[in-house]
Amino acid sequence: MIRIGIFGYGNLGKGVEAAVAKNKDMELAAVFTRRDPEAVKVMTPGVKVYHEEALKDMKDAIDVLILCGGSATDLPVQTPAYAAMYNVVDSFDTHARIPEHFANVDAAAKEAGKVAVISCGWDPGMFSLNRLYANCILPDGQDYTFWGKGVSQGHSDAVRRIEGVKDCRQYTIPVDEALEAVRAGKQPELTTREKHTRECFVVAEEGADLARIESEIVNMPNYFADYNTTVHFITEEEMKANHSGLPHGGNVIRTGVTGFHNENTHVIEYKLTLDSNPEFTGSVIAAYARAAVRMNKEGQTGCKTVFDIAPAYLSDLSGEELRAHLL
Amino acid sequence: MIRIGIFGYGNLGKGVEAAVAKNKDMELAAVFTRRDPEAVKVMTPGVKVYHEEALKDMKDAIDVLILCGGSATDLPVQTPAYAAMYNVVDSFDTHARIPEHFANVDAAAKEAGKVAVISCGWDPGMFSLNRLYANCILPDGQDYTFWGKGVSQGHSDAVRRIEGVKDCRQYTIPVDEALEAVRAGKQPELTTREKHTRECFVVAEEGADLARIESEIVNMPNYFADYNTTVHFITEEEMKANHSGLPHGGNVIRTGVTGFHNENTHVIEYKLTLDSNPEFTGSVIAAYARAAVRMNKEGQTGCKTVFDIAPAYLSDLSGEELRAHLL
Repeated sequence: MIRIGIFGYGNLGKGVEAAVAKNKDMELAAVFTRRDPEAVKVMTPGVKVYHEEALKDMKDAIDVLILCGGSATDLPVQTPAYAAMYNVVDSFDTHARIPEHFANVDAAAKEAGKVAVISCGWDPGMFSLNRLYANCILPDGQDYTFWGKGVSQGHSDAVRRIEGVKDCRQYTIPVDEALEAVRAGKQPELTTREKHTRECFVVAEEGADLARIESEIVNMPNYFADYNTTVHFITEEEMKANHSGLPHGGNVIRTGVTGFHNENTHVIEYKLTLDSNPEFTGSVIAAYARAAVRMNKEGQTGCKTVFDIAPAYLSDLSGEELRAHLL
Repeated sequence: MIRIGIFGYGNLGKGVEAAVAKNKDMELAAVFTRRDPEAVKVMTPGVKVYHEEALKDMKDAIDVLILCGGSATDLPVQTPAYAAMYNVVDSFDTHARIPEHFANVDAAAKEAGKVAVISCGWDPGMFSLNRLYANCILPDGQDYTFWGKGVSQGHSDAVRRIEGVKDCRQYTIPVDEALEAVRAGKQPELTTREKHTRECFVVAEEGADLARIESEIVNMPNYFADYNTTVHFITEEEMKANHSGLPHGGNVIRTGVTGFHNENTHVIEYKLTLDSNPEFTGSVIAAYARAAVRMNKEGQTGCKTVFDIAPAYLSDLSGEELRAHLL
């Protein structure tokens, strides 16, 4: 059994816990938190919650530690720190800081003789992987990534900060016409506005100026100004009944040409439709946690991304079984 | 530059040649044939065609040899024989014989200190890879593979063997309703007939009994009897004008559930839409040829499939560049 530790028990930590329960060769060994452990109740029967402090003493009880903190301030500190003690997996997604994060984690993991997988999930993660494969197969082509339909936490939070807004759920939605033009292999040049629309469901405070709120949303720079945005005001009951999930997904598409006269067009599409963003992300992380443990058992060390890990490591089947059943 | 040799200059050999021309770090070094080399004219300027015999003397001129023969009788002999001299890639697709083929090729490649990639292309190949990734991410789920719309060479050949048939092109077509039910995450149980239909365009000999030909097609065991099949009789001119390409493609879909009460459904879909089956297969092979050379330079040897090869090996970019641009 692969003994999994989870550090951080928010949406992602819970998603990893649900994923571990689906993998017969894994068991959740412990959950770690910076909060009061007594206040954290986990789903898996019999699993103890510890304060972060306990991590320095549990190296023999855990094969791989999943770091479920945020990319802004948690992971840049936590991943190098714990890669010095454990095999680790994180979902670091601040793109511009990946080189620095990779270097810090790589040094710590190599020094400790551990494997650390960073930037794991679906974007970055499975989407990155599909961009890489498709680019290598079709060097003469064009990449497109669409996100949604799904909830963007960052955009929902931005709306919540507007005066008079009690709650918001923001959906990012790919524009059908753009998707179809891409799938037709036409390699269109698409503006931000042409690729996605944004839809906001807003619960306003009683007596708030709805026209002002709507105007502040649709004109908000960076978040909404470059998009066609629709705003719906709803009640708290409607919010709870219809918008409590965290669905997401999207499409990575590469179209390219082959032939001595570029006469043949090919379309490679990878599409995800996810009821729960954190549970799917957690499921990807669980598979790479297995890979981290297996690679480390073989003597490999250092920082890895999805690009560096042979697919067979993700599976609990042997090479013979994989070739017989999945090739 | 990676120096590529192609052995066998049929549709696939030509597809590999077209793919090599799209990769800036590759050059076509030579083409080998069992036919009279004088009778083979290649597309790439300045490239010489040799008889197979020459392969025993060209080890210093070629970094990786692409074997473009058939799976029935060519590759079981050729791949082990040439893995004893070269890094090689083949597209062996006789599923039941993969374990035996892998063992033979692995022994030869290890003995010679070479890397041999077998069963490379899109199915087996990219479809297998997507089945593997999706199975590891969603252990509690169901796999579906659809093929088409595309030309099946085997089915076209089977119809051509019927008395009175001069030519045939057979298209395999996924059933839209089945695809939609799968995409909706319903995990339907689908019969052969419910998944695909078959459509035949037939040129008959003058005076042939069309009703008999149609009946022989639709009732042919293994090939057509289990499918709903449509037969169209067309002229030779129509065949040439409308059915001279070799399009293909298909969908690998896995749907699965997560959550402690299986409350969330996820759909992972990989879809290929290909104008030219052999040129796309050749493009996948070219990327894995690069991987074979790079892995061998690092000291790796033996038989590999797409499962065993870390994605980064397919690219001519460095780890830093991949993380910066594609992660």
